[in-house]
Amino acid sequence: QFLSKWKFLRYILIYFDSVFRGIGQVMFANNPLSGLIIFFGLYCGNSQLSFYGFFGTCISTLTGYLFEFDSNLIRNGLFGYNGCLIGMAIPFFTLSNSYYLICPIIIFSIFSTIFYVSINRFFVRYMDISSFTFSFQMCTWIYILSCFKSHHFQLNHDLISPHLLKISDEKVKMTFENYSLQMNFQGFLSGISQVYFIENVYTGMFILIGLCLCSRILAFFALFGSIIGQLFATYVFQMSVESIRSGLWAFNCVLTCQVLGGMFFVLSEYQIWFYTFYGSLMTLLIQLSLSSYFSSIGLPVLTFPFTFISWIFCSINQ
Amino acid sequence: QFLSKWKFLRYILIYFDSVFRGIGQVMFANNPLSGLIIFFGLYCGNSQLSFYGFFGTCISTLTGYLFEFDSNLIRNGLFGYNGCLIGMAIPFFTLSNSYYLICPIIIFSIFSTIFYVSINRFFVRYMDISSFTFSFQMCTWIYILSCFKSHHFQLNHDLISPHLLKISDEKVKMTFENYSLQMNFQGFLSGISQVYFIENVYTGMFILIGLCLCSRILAFFALFGSIIGQLFATYVFQMSVESIRSGLWAFNCVLTCQVLGGMFFVLSEYQIWFYTFYGSLMTLLIQLSLSSYFSSIGLPVLTFPFTFISWIFCSINQ
Amino acid sequence: QFLSKWKFLRYILIYFDSVFRGIGQVMFANNPLSGLIIFFGLYCGNSQLSFYGFFGTCISTLTGYLFEFDSNLIRNGLFGYNGCLIGMAIPFFTLSNSYYLICPIIIFSIFSTIFYVSINRFFVRYMDISSFTFSFQMCTWIYILSCFKSHHFQLNHDLISPHLLKISDEKVKMTFENYSLQMNFQGFLSGISQVYFIENVYTGMFILIGLCLCSRILAFFALFGSIIGQLFATYVFQMSVESIRSGLWAFNCVLTCQVLGGMFFVLSEYQIWFYTFYGSLMTLLIQLSLSSYFSSIGLPVLTFPFTFISWIFCSINQ
Repeated sequence: QFLSKWKFLRYILIYFDSVFRGIGQVMFANNPLSGLIIFFGLYCGNSQLSFYGFFGTCISTLTGYLFEFDSNLIRNGLFGYNGCLIGMAIPFFTLSNSYYLICPIIIFSIFSTIFYVSINRFFVRYMDISSFTFSFQMCTWIYILSCFKSHHFQLNHDLISPHLLKISDEKVKMTFENYSLQMNFQGFLSGISQVYFIENVYTGMFILIGLCLCSRILAFFALFGSIIGQLFATYVFQMSVESIRSGLWAFNCVLTCQVLGGMFFVLSEYQIWFYTFYGSLMTLLIQLSLSSYFSSIGLPVLTFPFTFISWIFCSINQ
Repeated sequence: QFLSKWKFLRYILIYFDSVFRGIGQVMFANNPLSGLIIFFGLYCGNSQLSFYGFFGTCISTLTGYLFEFDSNLIRNGLFGYNGCLIGMAIPFFTLSNSYYLICPIIIFSIFSTIFYVSINRFFVRYMDISSFTFSFQMCTWIYILSCFKSHHFQLNHDLISPHLLKISDEKVKMTFENYSLQMNFQGFLSGISQVYFIENVYTGMFILIGLCLCSRILAFFALFGSIIGQLFATYVFQMSVESIRSGLWAFNCVLTCQVLGGMFFVLSEYQIWFYTFYGSLMTLLIQLSLSSYFSSIGLPVLTFPFTFISWIFCSINQ
Repeated sequence: QFLSKWKFLRYILIYFDSVFRGIGQVMFANNPLSGLIIFFGLYCGNSQLSFYGFFGTCISTLTGYLFEFDSNLIRNGLFGYNGCLIGMAIPFFTLSNSYYLICPIIIFSIFSTIFYVSINRFFVRYMDISSFTFSFQMCTWIYILSCFKSHHFQLNHDLISPHLLKISDEKVKMTFENYSLQMNFQGFLSGISQVYFIENVYTGMFILIGLCLCSRILAFFALFGSIIGQLFATYVFQMSVESIRSGLWAFNCVLTCQVLGGMFFVLSEYQIWFYTFYGSLMTLLIQLSLSSYFSSIGLPVLTFPFTFISWIFCSINQ
């Protein structure tokens, strides 16, 4: 009897190990301790959102166990990261605060795992690339679009507002004096935390510490991506001050640089700098154009720009 | 001379066997008698539409013969079902009643067969899944979109009305008293006939009888799908009374349940119930979100929600 | 020292050979002399645009060398044609005339080569078809959409105007008297030059001469495609007089007929006529429907209708 209890505890431990790896895998950190520190950082930034994210990770990981998918992938947290992001995205884009929100989180976290396995038959088997966070993006887009037509949840007007594109949008020409150095520095760190829908400098720090534990290269390229993403958005594209401060132009570049710089490529010195620079620039251009493309339905771009650029760059070197 | 006439008659017979199988294959019934009974049901519901559907099936099956595509597929009616749906969809979404309508029906029925063969190189060869009715959906969408810009046919305003999404759509909160039991029962059967763009209880009955002849499991899951689709739409999503009565939320679930429950899966008892339940729920969510996605161009979702969910679920179990 | 200079000159020569092949490859002419004549024709039509096109071809071909992609493809100009079209499309759709335009041309010409290699892993390796000009289309769409949100370039209002589709667009019913024969003849040749965004009868002639040098079949089907595209647009779809005169309905059919008639297919006599006729009709229908699909974001259809139809038809005959 004691042994069976022990065995059960061991299962629980393995399960939570996978869950925390899942939280870390959002930023490619395959390490339960990294996941724990990142979770603590998220908790500091927005306690409610962090618990929803944890809950989503639990559900999508559990789905992997119940459907008896590849246990190796489950153990590495690869079924968790989409659920984590879905768990945080659904409350983020919804106005309601009620606990009913766990219903869509459960439904879409389960679907994220099923969708992930399904598209990987194409991406992994034939293209030999990861599908990255595409499953999370699809699920969140489906949730948001279905919310327009259902009665239960109200979308956040400030984040989602469908409108028709105009050519002659009176564009407020920014001058470089508009941007302060302090604002930029703030953006470097909140840009990292924006990967998890949180705008908080301390959360960004915790995430960097968590990443360091797993791999210093990963942490370096996360910060590097945030910095060049912000600098491009400020001094090349001259975006609005608020969006720069909140790090909205950094989080896709953070992930792109992690992939191109440290994770999937083994490149020589000078190539890395070209790839990360050019990749970040293209990530921003995709982010701009995708937000135009989605304007009439008001969808957020989420991390799709990073996913798209990573697909393109990862498949040329094979 | 007598023999050659006999031979010719035999060809004609084989051809019409394929055509009626094609009409049945819309709901996966590979049986000419089922097709005949279903055709009779359609005739009762809407005589004009049923003949257009028959005509479309003839054209797309004939295309298969003329292009010398896989004769095995032709014999099983797999080149017919897309043509059948196109033949019914084009007059359904067009206001005009003139016989000129056979021009687009011919053009797109031919294209449905070509497109079907073309995409199957990807779906069947690499993904090992059927493309389902995707060819029909693409052709109908192309027809509708091209109608906006051409002078010949006028689209039906009531069915196709492009508009911009609004977050604060004044949603009429439905209470459960709005729904009567009689209305729900009516929807169960007209939901089945809606697969063929017809809202008619008797047509639904004929279709069920036709399916029974081919396989009782198929017929059971068609009805089952219609029932849970309707119940979800009524008691979970609280859709408008008219859309419930006309069975608009059932036809995708009918097809999803046929695929997941009877056709492509060999599942154990308890798994079947989970798959069909969860699959129907997701089909409805996709239907809601796709209609939001298409709002600015006014396209109907057709059977794409079923196609999408079936792709996802069919590819995880391999 | 003399020898090394000689070697360097040889490299330069090979490079420009590839570049001019790239300009010709837009219309499948793998011949540097054809490219040179076509370039001269473009120069006559619009000198500024032709140089931007040449510049784009140089950049995208150079990218192929620097990334050490398949040297066989580079030598055949297959990395040039997307860059050529991008170099001409970006100034064409932008109002600005400043030399800053070379910045987006450089960025997207590089990306066209990277994207081309990336998607060819799917198209060439698995589907065994060319990706045609899809890379150019994606890059131009990304450029245009990102322009909506950035401050630097102003899009041309006359070419790009997002609007909501209306069913009851007051369609000016054209009568056949509206179309003059002279106008149609003008369109036959300017339709060919429209492949390169130029509306000029003499440019069309130069292009035909250039194509003749490479293959008379290619030149014939280019003219043939232009003629039937124009005639369909005039006498079947009854499009506006200006669009007919400027050849806007011909350029996709030109390319479709080149592919179906001469380039990728080896067909018997009577089949060729069916494929080119039916393919041109479907190309026009796709062009109409895609422009409806893009109406709310105002994107131009570019050569995607040709690309789509060629994908479909090229993959059925394998």
